[in-house]
Amino acid sequence: MSERIPVAVLGATGAVGQRFVSLLAGHPWFEVVAVTGSGRSAGRPYGEAVRWVVPGEVPPAVADLIVRPTEEVGEARLVFSALPSEVARQVEPRLAARGLVVCSNASAHRMTPDVPLLIPEINADHLGLIAAQRRARKWQGCLVTSPNCSTTGVVFPLKALHDAFGVRRGHVVTMQAVSGAGYPGVPSLDILDNIIPYIAGEEEKVESEPRKLLGRLTEAGIEPAAFAVSAQTHRVPVLDGHLAAMSVALERPATVEEALAVLEGFAPPARVRDLPSAPARPMAVRREVDRPQPRRDREAGDGMVVTVGRVQPCPVFDIKLVSLVHNTLRGAAGGAILNAEWLVAEGYLERVAA
Amino acid sequence: MSERIPVAVLGATGAVGQRFVSLLAGHPWFEVVAVTGSGRSAGRPYGEAVRWVVPGEVPPAVADLIVRPTEEVGEARLVFSALPSEVARQVEPRLAARGLVVCSNASAHRMTPDVPLLIPEINADHLGLIAAQRRARKWQGCLVTSPNCSTTGVVFPLKALHDAFGVRRGHVVTMQAVSGAGYPGVPSLDILDNIIPYIAGEEEKVESEPRKLLGRLTEAGIEPAAFAVSAQTHRVPVLDGHLAAMSVALERPATVEEALAVLEGFAPPARVRDLPSAPARPMAVRREVDRPQPRRDREAGDGMVVTVGRVQPCPVFDIKLVSLVHNTLRGAAGGAILNAEWLVAEGYLERVAA
Amino acid sequence: MSERIPVAVLGATGAVGQRFVSLLAGHPWFEVVAVTGSGRSAGRPYGEAVRWVVPGEVPPAVADLIVRPTEEVGEARLVFSALPSEVARQVEPRLAARGLVVCSNASAHRMTPDVPLLIPEINADHLGLIAAQRRARKWQGCLVTSPNCSTTGVVFPLKALHDAFGVRRGHVVTMQAVSGAGYPGVPSLDILDNIIPYIAGEEEKVESEPRKLLGRLTEAGIEPAAFAVSAQTHRVPVLDGHLAAMSVALERPATVEEALAVLEGFAPPARVRDLPSAPARPMAVRREVDRPQPRRDREAGDGMVVTVGRVQPCPVFDIKLVSLVHNTLRGAAGGAILNAEWLVAEGYLERVAA
Amino acid sequence: MSERIPVAVLGATGAVGQRFVSLLAGHPWFEVVAVTGSGRSAGRPYGEAVRWVVPGEVPPAVADLIVRPTEEVGEARLVFSALPSEVARQVEPRLAARGLVVCSNASAHRMTPDVPLLIPEINADHLGLIAAQRRARKWQGCLVTSPNCSTTGVVFPLKALHDAFGVRRGHVVTMQAVSGAGYPGVPSLDILDNIIPYIAGEEEKVESEPRKLLGRLTEAGIEPAAFAVSAQTHRVPVLDGHLAAMSVALERPATVEEALAVLEGFAPPARVRDLPSAPARPMAVRREVDRPQPRRDREAGDGMVVTVGRVQPCPVFDIKLVSLVHNTLRGAAGGAILNAEWLVAEGYLERVAA
Repeated sequence: MSERIPVAVLGATGAVGQRFVSLLAGHPWFEVVAVTGSGRSAGRPYGEAVRWVVPGEVPPAVADLIVRPTEEVGEARLVFSALPSEVARQVEPRLAARGLVVCSNASAHRMTPDVPLLIPEINADHLGLIAAQRRARKWQGCLVTSPNCSTTGVVFPLKALHDAFGVRRGHVVTMQAVSGAGYPGVPSLDILDNIIPYIAGEEEKVESEPRKLLGRLTEAGIEPAAFAVSAQTHRVPVLDGHLAAMSVALERPATVEEALAVLEGFAPPARVRDLPSAPARPMAVRREVDRPQPRRDREAGDGMVVTVGRVQPCPVFDIKLVSLVHNTLRGAAGGAILNAEWLVAEGYLERVAA
Repeated sequence: MSERIPVAVLGATGAVGQRFVSLLAGHPWFEVVAVTGSGRSAGRPYGEAVRWVVPGEVPPAVADLIVRPTEEVGEARLVFSALPSEVARQVEPRLAARGLVVCSNASAHRMTPDVPLLIPEINADHLGLIAAQRRARKWQGCLVTSPNCSTTGVVFPLKALHDAFGVRRGHVVTMQAVSGAGYPGVPSLDILDNIIPYIAGEEEKVESEPRKLLGRLTEAGIEPAAFAVSAQTHRVPVLDGHLAAMSVALERPATVEEALAVLEGFAPPARVRDLPSAPARPMAVRREVDRPQPRRDREAGDGMVVTVGRVQPCPVFDIKLVSLVHNTLRGAAGGAILNAEWLVAEGYLERVAA
Repeated sequence: MSERIPVAVLGATGAVGQRFVSLLAGHPWFEVVAVTGSGRSAGRPYGEAVRWVVPGEVPPAVADLIVRPTEEVGEARLVFSALPSEVARQVEPRLAARGLVVCSNASAHRMTPDVPLLIPEINADHLGLIAAQRRARKWQGCLVTSPNCSTTGVVFPLKALHDAFGVRRGHVVTMQAVSGAGYPGVPSLDILDNIIPYIAGEEEKVESEPRKLLGRLTEAGIEPAAFAVSAQTHRVPVLDGHLAAMSVALERPATVEEALAVLEGFAPPARVRDLPSAPARPMAVRREVDRPQPRRDREAGDGMVVTVGRVQPCPVFDIKLVSLVHNTLRGAAGGAILNAEWLVAEGYLERVAA
Repeated sequence: MSERIPVAVLGATGAVGQRFVSLLAGHPWFEVVAVTGSGRSAGRPYGEAVRWVVPGEVPPAVADLIVRPTEEVGEARLVFSALPSEVARQVEPRLAARGLVVCSNASAHRMTPDVPLLIPEINADHLGLIAAQRRARKWQGCLVTSPNCSTTGVVFPLKALHDAFGVRRGHVVTMQAVSGAGYPGVPSLDILDNIIPYIAGEEEKVESEPRKLLGRLTEAGIEPAAFAVSAQTHRVPVLDGHLAAMSVALERPATVEEALAVLEGFAPPARVRDLPSAPARPMAVRREVDRPQPRRDREAGDGMVVTVGRVQPCPVFDIKLVSLVHNTLRGAAGGAILNAEWLVAEGYLERVAA
């Protein structure tokens, strides 16, 4: 136990913060030694300060930790940030400067040129940005971000198709769960028997982040992938699981069976697959006519598997498909923890320790 | 009262049939004199045979009518068909042959070359097909169809943009209400906290019907509009109202403000606007960032107005927007009744009477 | 128009305040001349300050009114209070002291001995308290309250049964809509696929208010009805409409048919029935096995009719039944407006004017 | 593996049948060797014939079994019946006569005098009925039933209170999940944004079954407990988990703290607690003001724990409380499997084998 790496969760009382706390309970490599929160919760035991909205109960080992002010992380050497973006913008660089490895789920620094936007199965090599990041900023620590929840569901099939056929353009229409808005988040008066065709800032993220994720690491930084994405995002009365209806234009034509073969054959590098939170295969392909469905597929691989289905020819582009991601697991806390595992595997924490 | 045109509703006990019965109560031109139904309901008073699932109560004048076998329409001269498609395929031509004006909501004959697929505000002139229809089939009556519910919501903004700028291609992703599946329809175990990314036959309809609706009437029939449409359709936990996220590529580039001007300026011919069921303006444009929403906008114009919003530039095509239609009113019974009104206004019932 | 009584709505931007504004648009006796709100909304046009969550659009005549600070009611002579209870406690007496007729929907003063808790169809004579109220408090105006939304649905059948057979005890279990919690109110993360068996303060209200409503007006004030009520209240994923499952022990035994006769025969005094917002019959009894249902019955009588059903023998008490009330119409704004109409009909506004 | 007891699931393609199949996968004592179904599914592999609606995937070992006609159970020695009640009425006695141990979830024989209605933690000794059952009916096998899902949630707190203080009367109002109606079950058009205050036959079950469960085994059979129960049952838009608001009159007065002590101290006999499907404690008591909630508490103890909360004084009876049961786990398949385990532990299967 004492050999696990001490970590902190920033913004631990929010919905994503709770997912971090929940997933880190019993993690083989990490041990939560500090939780931070904003004004009202600081100074109280976590178990009292939190209004627990994720499944299960507050892990006992964390329930008794006293919530600290936002930037007080104690002896933690690695921090998970579930901070609001405007707070993250200031706080995260300060922590990296203090020598901490910061794995952020906030959007603030995702598109910053020298900050990796990372999914280990997609662009493990983007960690290469960190050397320049440390040089330029004179940081002992480092800052790595995980993408928007909807981006995460979209980029897995895009990656497989891009590698095989080249993606030219993509249309994405999302149907996103209410948990994506945190707690209290979406009022029931707005969403029962309804859909809201607007999520602030979301379309921009889904249109830009996949290009960085699938971009090429060069001396000068990430050269974004050359395709354009159009996104329309919607809030729907679903608890967890973001569904994306996608249509993709390819550089080299592909039949549905060719596309299916590529999607089903998608496999990340072995070293990534061996990380504790990595599923054996991060993308599942279903051939039933009516899958994926949020409620029936969101828990695949403990919420770490993206499920793709309805792969069909598109009368306008080349391939239509539907993709589903668990937005608070793979699409948020689970994704950031996997990033941290990759950082450890790649030796970034040793260097901090040195 | 006695001067109103006697009409029948076929398949009157189903969900769409009920909407017909409800909307026709108090109609200034039409009087329901016959309702038909399948095996179990035939022979019983309508008020007893029906499991009423639409708002309000069974209209008293219809409650006491005895449900007749499917094709027995009494003295009706015009019939509204809410039959299942496989039944409609056989029954509707027989009724037209017997001299009846048939306004169908079924999909069976929508794409038949000599059968108008009609929305009076969109393609009023397509009634011109009827002359050839009668000639070829030796019918005294005639058969006119109304489009699929989702097509209806999609084709209004397409029409306005097509007339002004020419539509080259369109992407459509629908989020459709459970009432579109009739009663009992979608099991609650399938749709609570869930989305189903599949509706049998729906994508094909949304991809093909708009091209006929916006096609050109020629000597040889309807020449379909030249654009391609890609559709992905989803069932969502909403009671009424189909939402469509659309992206449109245009022949001639247009700014968002130009598109908005065209959408807001859309006006059907005056003679159509004066029909009893026609709203003053059949398409409303909302500029709020989060509209249209199914629950808040579906009742616009008593459910006969299509509401469009979120008109934005598209990074891949030209214009993105969202469109909403009340699927059982404008998108089904209301649309078919408007078609019947247009047939009467154009004199097609007189010719039957002669 | 100019002859209508000028009224103000306090707390007009909240969910109940919006219902007041919506219902008063086009009211034959009242004209909204002032709307008040708390800090952030004061000073802005109502149409901008409000986040409109009730059906339809903001009435144009009110949209342009500038929201005033809470107690500034301009030339209004009667005010409708949708204030939070803790604010109402202070503000409402001050306004009554200033000569205004205050019709409150807040709970603050409902159980105050010299304040009528009024439903005109139930206890019209309780206005008799006002004389003593004015005397004791030296008010020119007066203060009248309407009951809790759930109480309202419960008290109609209780009244009919109490008058006929005497109520000894009652069990009440409510299933309450999310609109009862205002906006933003209940988070969707709490209520989708869920029930919450707790509503702060609600059980106490349902246990105490019916006794005052059915109490007897005496020289010394209201002598509460002698029965005891047990209440358990639940929040359910329904938009509007509070359902109450009730079981009632009677002083004099009654069969189900006798109870039904009494419930169906319930009729308020003719002078009450003639008020503009009073339905012809305020309580509807349905004999179908599966009614009332919130979505299908809440709009009965424009939301002013309480619907009762499932009247059955009770193995423990005498009669079981289920009652439904539209919580924001009859159970809130509509009820308070009806109270105001009764005050006008009884001449209480003239005395103010004098 | 080969030493496990071969069992069959009757009605295996229905929703409860699927729960049996799912729970029995990997069961330490039982191995599914036969699944039966009605007309359309018989003769096809189970994995194809079933429309799987419970979480997870069809267990591979069962997916390949060919569905057999209803009564063909192969070499099974024990059968779990998820048959419709009218079928169960005929089939179950025939199977018991053929020497099988029948554990039924159907309602057909629950109130039959010589058939145990069993929950091992509640009335383990009622197995004593089997001797007379076999004698009278000349059966080699036997028939044991598990109670209605709502009864199960109600009877745990009743048992604890009855043993300690004596129950005189009880009021029960249920809010029941849609999974209780099977698949397809409740149409979404009926239940979205709605409650249905009626479930066929349910009130009668909740009023009668607890009296048998808490009855006393005598020479002459079960002498029912002497209390009366009044039940009102409702369908709500929740997927799983039946909530019951209860009020209980006691023989000997008890304070809330005394009631809580009894509820929290409830412990079944050690031999029952050691059964494979028995939770350590079958009833959890929560003291938070807003628990239990269906979504947040239904999975307690893998769905085998009944959760009780909101224990309060009742102004009419003695104690009010709220109880929650997972209706398809503890309240159906899980309960019947626990019954089978108890039968095995008590040696009833050996006697069959002999």
